[in-house]
Amino acid sequence: MTTQAACQQAAQMAPQWAVANTQLKNQVLHAMADALDRHQDRILAANARDCEAFKGPDAVLDRLRLSIPRIQGMAAGVRQVAQLPDPIGEVLSGWTRPNGLRIMQQRVPLGVIGIIYEARPNVTSDAMALCLKTGNAVVLRGSSTARHTNEAVVAVMTIAGEAAGLTPGVVQYLADTSREGVKTFVTMTDTLDLMIPRGGADLIQTVVTHATVPCIETGVGNCHIFIDESASFDMACAIIENAKTQRPSVCNAVETVLVHAAIAPVFLPLLVGRLQALGVACRGCERVREHVPQVAPATPDDWDTEYLDLILALRVVPDVSAACDHIRRHGTRHSEAIVTTSLVTSQYFTAHVDAAVVLVNASTRFVDGEAFGFGAEIGISTQKMHARGPMGLVALTSTKYVVMGDGQCRE
Amino acid sequence: MTTQAACQQAAQMAPQWAVANTQLKNQVLHAMADALDRHQDRILAANARDCEAFKGPDAVLDRLRLSIPRIQGMAAGVRQVAQLPDPIGEVLSGWTRPNGLRIMQQRVPLGVIGIIYEARPNVTSDAMALCLKTGNAVVLRGSSTARHTNEAVVAVMTIAGEAAGLTPGVVQYLADTSREGVKTFVTMTDTLDLMIPRGGADLIQTVVTHATVPCIETGVGNCHIFIDESASFDMACAIIENAKTQRPSVCNAVETVLVHAAIAPVFLPLLVGRLQALGVACRGCERVREHVPQVAPATPDDWDTEYLDLILALRVVPDVSAACDHIRRHGTRHSEAIVTTSLVTSQYFTAHVDAAVVLVNASTRFVDGEAFGFGAEIGISTQKMHARGPMGLVALTSTKYVVMGDGQCRE
Repeated sequence: MTTQAACQQAAQMAPQWAVANTQLKNQVLHAMADALDRHQDRILAANARDCEAFKGPDAVLDRLRLSIPRIQGMAAGVRQVAQLPDPIGEVLSGWTRPNGLRIMQQRVPLGVIGIIYEARPNVTSDAMALCLKTGNAVVLRGSSTARHTNEAVVAVMTIAGEAAGLTPGVVQYLADTSREGVKTFVTMTDTLDLMIPRGGADLIQTVVTHATVPCIETGVGNCHIFIDESASFDMACAIIENAKTQRPSVCNAVETVLVHAAIAPVFLPLLVGRLQALGVACRGCERVREHVPQVAPATPDDWDTEYLDLILALRVVPDVSAACDHIRRHGTRHSEAIVTTSLVTSQYFTAHVDAAVVLVNASTRFVDGEAFGFGAEIGISTQKMHARGPMGLVALTSTKYVVMGDGQCRE
Repeated sequence: MTTQAACQQAAQMAPQWAVANTQLKNQVLHAMADALDRHQDRILAANARDCEAFKGPDAVLDRLRLSIPRIQGMAAGVRQVAQLPDPIGEVLSGWTRPNGLRIMQQRVPLGVIGIIYEARPNVTSDAMALCLKTGNAVVLRGSSTARHTNEAVVAVMTIAGEAAGLTPGVVQYLADTSREGVKTFVTMTDTLDLMIPRGGADLIQTVVTHATVPCIETGVGNCHIFIDESASFDMACAIIENAKTQRPSVCNAVETVLVHAAIAPVFLPLLVGRLQALGVACRGCERVREHVPQVAPATPDDWDTEYLDLILALRVVPDVSAACDHIRRHGTRHSEAIVTTSLVTSQYFTAHVDAAVVLVNASTRFVDGEAFGFGAEIGISTQKMHARGPMGLVALTSTKYVVMGDGQCRE
């Protein structure tokens, strides 16, 4: 089926699924999770074909490769979504106008959601579960390297889902995984209501540049931690170590630490020593290197680099205002943190930093749907429209006003 | 100044205005309103130049032409926005995680908002007031036909605003009003956070097609009213008359009426008689013309036409499901109404019609910010992301999570 035909079919069938009640939706999700457990062999066989054909970095192969525990994890993820409260039908607000009109704002599905993602097969089951739970149709466009795996996962889940009451056609998996195909997909404004790219900076940039379908930018995180002069050194080091080393390859890891000039002579040698012991390579500005000469010099490019690795940039700044200024110039509006004991400085920082999440005395690693308590996450929005920060089920919904009258006409 | 430079300046100064408190913002708006009243002569002189140079339909000239009452109306509109509650800083939700992290979601400004509009000079003052009240910078791109008027309004308002504390540079009026200039403007993703086109279907389509900046589609309304077999004929006729004739040129006027087959033989002659007495030209499907042969035949194009005039399309449908189907195929997801006395049918209609606003027993003319009680309106969103339906101040805001910890690290 062509991309156009797949999107059209999803759009045609979406209204029927949009009015499915929570009981039916959960029944379908449980049937899908059970099918993943029942058909592990089929999925593993398909995955083996993809892994054998794969030519690329080991890190990507590791993400692509499934195992029985990983498939069990995918099924558990689908069941977790089934257990979450259904946001559809929520009444957000309601009021009565002087003329007696009763206005009510209700939460409704968005319609058809497009997802473009890379080689992680668990995104296939996660995205399906999240979109279906919110009454949406979903058109998936995975990586060509995971094609057989994704097709097996989609087949196993949709066959079981349809037997349990899923509207046929509301889940589509695109056969065309070419780069040109992406451009067609992201301009299907007649049939798609939302496009979410999930993956690296290149993928997101390609989608955002070419998309005319409304698009939520996710995930690129050039995150900072500012260590104020009033900070506890112990807390500051612990938070930086955690934010850099606990999982360096993810978007909420820290990439640059800004240090208040007043504490730089004492704090920087302590910090760099602790980081080096953990295998972190530091790069510093001139003023950093005055205090810790063993640190490699940073170039202007370092301030704009999302390393996603055990590398950290360090810069000395004169005060919190200069820290906010650096973050404004170089940040990606994802997650920005301060370590301080000053109420005034913490208030200045949270008010002046423009980011999805601003943290005081906590690791940037807490910025995701799980740590926020959302139960499941479709991504972390770094843009300001519709949804910002970790996105749970609510980000996949829209609203509708229902107005009840008894014959009112406008004067 | 070039479009790029204007957007860059707005983006550079926006953070300073974003933290202005409500008192300062209201003070600036009142100073701007007073300046409009004080400089009526200057604005009228500029407007006279535009009106003399104008070559086009009288209806457009009427929208372009200012008078002392119209300038007073613009000032009153600005004062009205000053009096509205400030949504910025509102805490939308907050909770504490098991590890003690306190998460709070706050309402913040979007940043820089672009507005593209046609020849109505009151949009200049309205859009400035709404954007500034919500702590945003604004880049205005009006029509070349209103250039002198708009420049005078912007000059009068910004000079007075800056004297009262407005951050210089946060209001920009684009000198380039060419069609190519629009394409540059709507792709300034580095500096603009949101683009709102206000005007006719052509303008909106041009913006939506070329925009890479997130864009809110407003205003195109091919609105329907379905008259159920259980409807009161009096109420149905009154609502249709109001929705068609009270102000035919606006987006929330009705364009097609769908009539249940069971009442068509009696209801249609009654309705058509009443509409003809009001000067409405009707166009009907074959089944309509069986009952009222004097009605002109409708072509398939009629179902997709937003007449914005005293013309109404009529179609007989077998039931509410067919009415919903017609609306799904031909509606623009703006405002859709049903007249019925059946609880079951009203519930079916409100659940199955996918539109910004679904009305039961009320005229579609009520769908705007004023009738909804929002006090002021930036437009009516017909898309599903970020904001849907009449948009007040809240639609011009985003959110930010602030997370307070005491040294938490992720395990």
